[in-house]
Amino acid sequence: MTSVLIIGGGGMIGQKLAQSYGNNDTVSVLDMAFTEPSNVKAKKIVGSVTDAGIWEKTLSDLPDTIFYLASVVSGEAEVDFSKGWDVNIHAFWSFLDQIRDQYLKSEGRYKPRIIFTSSIAVFGSPFPNKITDDFLTAPRTSYGAQKSCCEIMLNDFIRKGFCEGLAIRLPTICVRPGKPNLAASSFFSGIIREPLNGLKAYLPVPTDVQHWHASPRSAVGFLRHAENLGRNAMRFNAALNMPGLSCTVEEQIEALRSIAGNEAVKLIEAKPDEKIIEIVKGWPRNFDAKIALELGFSAESSFVDIIKIYIEDDLKKV
Amino acid sequence: MTSVLIIGGGGMIGQKLAQSYGNNDTVSVLDMAFTEPSNVKAKKIVGSVTDAGIWEKTLSDLPDTIFYLASVVSGEAEVDFSKGWDVNIHAFWSFLDQIRDQYLKSEGRYKPRIIFTSSIAVFGSPFPNKITDDFLTAPRTSYGAQKSCCEIMLNDFIRKGFCEGLAIRLPTICVRPGKPNLAASSFFSGIIREPLNGLKAYLPVPTDVQHWHASPRSAVGFLRHAENLGRNAMRFNAALNMPGLSCTVEEQIEALRSIAGNEAVKLIEAKPDEKIIEIVKGWPRNFDAKIALELGFSAESSFVDIIKIYIEDDLKKV
Repeated sequence: MTSVLIIGGGGMIGQKLAQSYGNNDTVSVLDMAFTEPSNVKAKKIVGSVTDAGIWEKTLSDLPDTIFYLASVVSGEAEVDFSKGWDVNIHAFWSFLDQIRDQYLKSEGRYKPRIIFTSSIAVFGSPFPNKITDDFLTAPRTSYGAQKSCCEIMLNDFIRKGFCEGLAIRLPTICVRPGKPNLAASSFFSGIIREPLNGLKAYLPVPTDVQHWHASPRSAVGFLRHAENLGRNAMRFNAALNMPGLSCTVEEQIEALRSIAGNEAVKLIEAKPDEKIIEIVKGWPRNFDAKIALELGFSAESSFVDIIKIYIEDDLKKV
Repeated sequence: MTSVLIIGGGGMIGQKLAQSYGNNDTVSVLDMAFTEPSNVKAKKIVGSVTDAGIWEKTLSDLPDTIFYLASVVSGEAEVDFSKGWDVNIHAFWSFLDQIRDQYLKSEGRYKPRIIFTSSIAVFGSPFPNKITDDFLTAPRTSYGAQKSCCEIMLNDFIRKGFCEGLAIRLPTICVRPGKPNLAASSFFSGIIREPLNGLKAYLPVPTDVQHWHASPRSAVGFLRHAENLGRNAMRFNAALNMPGLSCTVEEQIEALRSIAGNEAVKLIEAKPDEKIIEIVKGWPRNFDAKIALELGFSAESSFVDIIKIYIEDDLKKV
């Protein structure tokens, strides 16, 4: 029996994560709105991470584990500079500050585990063939910069003993159910999801674009595994690249063809978008996630599997 | 003729930097107090970087170049957690935010060059023999974490076009004139400065500790060179390791002996301090500052030279 708070818990991953807990666990989810169709038994808290007083309100129950998923996505952070920094950094700082307050007030008895979802956008090109665990973080987007600062802040709070935790750098989560979002990476899901639902999909980048993916099921697996890791799994750098699958858009399309045939593939229409092409150029393509694999994190090994997981977990529910 | 604002300009480096400008330049210095004996012609502004309204006040003259030196030092940031983050990060953010406001208000006509003094404390062990320009930043102190976040923020403001600039990662500045300060690195200067002034010095670490040094004269040289670099010198990562000299405490002491004799060396007394030993363990020892050297930055090549510069520039003035 454990008590869990999921910040940004109204989103797709947050809802799947909440669902992964049993009846004996106490799960609260905080988000600005709850639009996902939900059969999740969890206490819903409506609010923004930028609200004054939100942390006092949500942390008063002293949850054992806190997942921090709330974020302005990459495309939006690039367009709305102030909003990106306010939500993605300054709100996260206030959160950590409140955690420290609780730690101090309780004389060290309250020390939650904080799992923060970071991103591979913390890396900037030029890249090696495979990015290793000790590769330099040099973001080239505001989103990546914000995630990188959050990692450093969380790491310092952990080092000082105010909390435990881990920042996990998620691959692009694919196939996302539901509608396209403002993330520049949205099309990686769209070109699979839309055709499987009989809808047209637009491809804004060339088919030789290579990227790093994991399914929503893997993402929830990472989060739960991070929660259950031994307290000393990571000593000095609490930010970790997650495993995933590297493939090209071409390989994604061929996986779709093998599952849903030519008719599905015909629904994908090339519609180059220079802005997205430029953003995606600055993103990593492949990783050697050695430490994470050694610590027992795991992901898919073929894009066919990623599509099958979408069909099993989400397609029928749309 | 140029207009310059030096934030944290009351300190040792700030004063030497202000002095390096000519009569035709307009120099303003902001600091909480001006205690250094000063013959510098500069407009003094007394205030803290954390004061409300300080940026409107100091940036209204729209200086061409802004040096941001203000910082809570490493030892203090480690002891006073809140103060470290407030001064070293949150104030820097407000500063950048105000720069962006001025940029937007002027419709892009105001775009200053910002030179930020970062630190080699952004790196955390394990270290290679020599740290290269693409080495991972993984700080192990609050001070290093704060400097690292500032680098990332500045880089994003530069990338978005709101300012130009560079974050330069200074070696430990040695020999600092004046009194010991709260920096954990203070003793590196103390064991040279105190004996040269006939005073006892305490050495808190073993003599085989190896570290990375440059003189105050070099530090001012770095700052002035950074100011005059071409606008496209750094494309995507505006944080740069400065050149310096790697030597052990033993080598420092032998350099002192060669200049000031055994009597001076006898004034150094070993007084191990576990806290400082622990902090210094997490610090880099040697660099290959390839990019900086290619860009024309330069530093000393022997510790004897570093001591001579102290004697020439500062000893007589004490």
